[in-house]
Amino acid sequence: MQHEQLSRIQTRINAHLNQKIAQLTDSTIAIAPLTEALVYASSQGGKRLRPALCFSLGTSLGVSDDALLDCAVAIEFIHAYSLVHDDLPAMDNDVLRRGQPTCHIQFDEATAILTGDALQGLAYQTLIESAHLTAQQKVTACQLLLEAAGPRGMIAGQMLDILGENAELNLAQLTQLHQLKTGALITASLLLGALTSSHFDELKPILITLGNTLGLAFQIQDDLLDIEVPTEARGKTQGRDAELGKSTYPSLLGLDGSKIMRDQLIRQANDALENIASNPAVTGDLRFLANIIRFIGERQH
Amino acid sequence: MQHEQLSRIQTRINAHLNQKIAQLTDSTIAIAPLTEALVYASSQGGKRLRPALCFSLGTSLGVSDDALLDCAVAIEFIHAYSLVHDDLPAMDNDVLRRGQPTCHIQFDEATAILTGDALQGLAYQTLIESAHLTAQQKVTACQLLLEAAGPRGMIAGQMLDILGENAELNLAQLTQLHQLKTGALITASLLLGALTSSHFDELKPILITLGNTLGLAFQIQDDLLDIEVPTEARGKTQGRDAELGKSTYPSLLGLDGSKIMRDQLIRQANDALENIASNPAVTGDLRFLANIIRFIGERQH
Repeated sequence: MQHEQLSRIQTRINAHLNQKIAQLTDSTIAIAPLTEALVYASSQGGKRLRPALCFSLGTSLGVSDDALLDCAVAIEFIHAYSLVHDDLPAMDNDVLRRGQPTCHIQFDEATAILTGDALQGLAYQTLIESAHLTAQQKVTACQLLLEAAGPRGMIAGQMLDILGENAELNLAQLTQLHQLKTGALITASLLLGALTSSHFDELKPILITLGNTLGLAFQIQDDLLDIEVPTEARGKTQGRDAELGKSTYPSLLGLDGSKIMRDQLIRQANDALENIASNPAVTGDLRFLANIIRFIGERQH
Repeated sequence: MQHEQLSRIQTRINAHLNQKIAQLTDSTIAIAPLTEALVYASSQGGKRLRPALCFSLGTSLGVSDDALLDCAVAIEFIHAYSLVHDDLPAMDNDVLRRGQPTCHIQFDEATAILTGDALQGLAYQTLIESAHLTAQQKVTACQLLLEAAGPRGMIAGQMLDILGENAELNLAQLTQLHQLKTGALITASLLLGALTSSHFDELKPILITLGNTLGLAFQIQDDLLDIEVPTEARGKTQGRDAELGKSTYPSLLGLDGSKIMRDQLIRQANDALENIASNPAVTGDLRFLANIIRFIGERQH
């Protein structure tokens, strides 16, 4: 992927995230460990993949950077909250994330629970207080994100993930789990990128197809990396899925079968991209989005 | 308090809560333990004090029942989420709530964390998807609730509460803690009740005064009940504050001093109520709100 483009987005997202956290934890009542944990959990490392999807699509549709930045940061706050809570001892009980101690290890469990809670709220607050969206756009953006992150989306997926520990899921069940746990928020990232475009309604179905396809490809690659990449290289505990007795694509399809399915999904994503390119709403360059799609299939971290 | 009026509100809130949960956990992807836990955590028992405050003020201002119901349910979802997370082992580690096992005891810790997460989102979703508020009213309602429940409100209060275990707080610190942890959401309940009134802006300062006053009175009474009322009578573990080494109003002011302060606050609340009564926006009866104020100072559960 064009690293320069991605790292430019990462830099802007990180700056905007920190600014939002500073604004939303007003100094007169800033509680030291809470504010530190909010910054720690949301600003360290991370590929900023979801913001990049939101941005790359949005700019190709001529959406203003300011509106995209608010949407992208809101999505990343949701992602950060989900990681903090997923890593908790009662959930995946993971001690390492992006090469750093997870939030409850760095601080403590109570602080990590509250940090996740706060990050969820900050996501919606970023949208609601945006100076670059109309009231109706704020409402629609919140609705899309709430739906993707809630008990019909990400939370349902995480619940299925926990119920699936030490149980054998079939391919349909595993796919549903990851469509909810990962796909829904990736899809929302694309939808929020297109939200302020006048062609939003007609683009919506193909963006949902693209998001779901990318979500699964992302997850298959994640499962493969969990097996193939050592802890030090990835900054994440190797072999955690197997330890937790989780069903994965490689456990159902084998390594080769998983790679075939992943590559098939990436081809489907590129087909969806071609469909999007033919829409008159696209006035800019789709190469950045094409690069992200390639990155999702090839990433090594 | 006029029990009939309160129990009428409770019945309507409970019905609306269950309806929202059913809607927002669509049957095609309802995950059994998650849906059960959502219903368990939000619909069992509870005084529905915050919804009652929202309702009693709103109806005196001529706000429609439908709009009030959505606001009241959103507030109660936030309250329910905060209780589920506060009871977790890493937080207050409480096993009993409203005479029932707490959520993580009845289900398990992972389910309780996800249930709290889901309830927080459902609060904002209830406002965002309301058929009885304009886009601008939804935005303002979300903003008020996010502010009250976030890291400048309830979450900051909960963090201070945890940091205050086994530490000695002075009266100013204890008051700040409870203004954030309890007062902010009680104040938001009044503000959301008045939101759609054309006199909202002029009423706002006095509603904030009333809310903060009631929040503290409520907390002092809570501290007193924690000492004076046995577990069986209250459905909540007696003496939990002392066990956790928490500073309380009785530990700082004694039982008598606390009662004097509580009664003073109730008088101040009644003064605020008189001020509100003189506003031309008040077209209905304020007796229900007056009764709730009395109840807050006298309640035995």
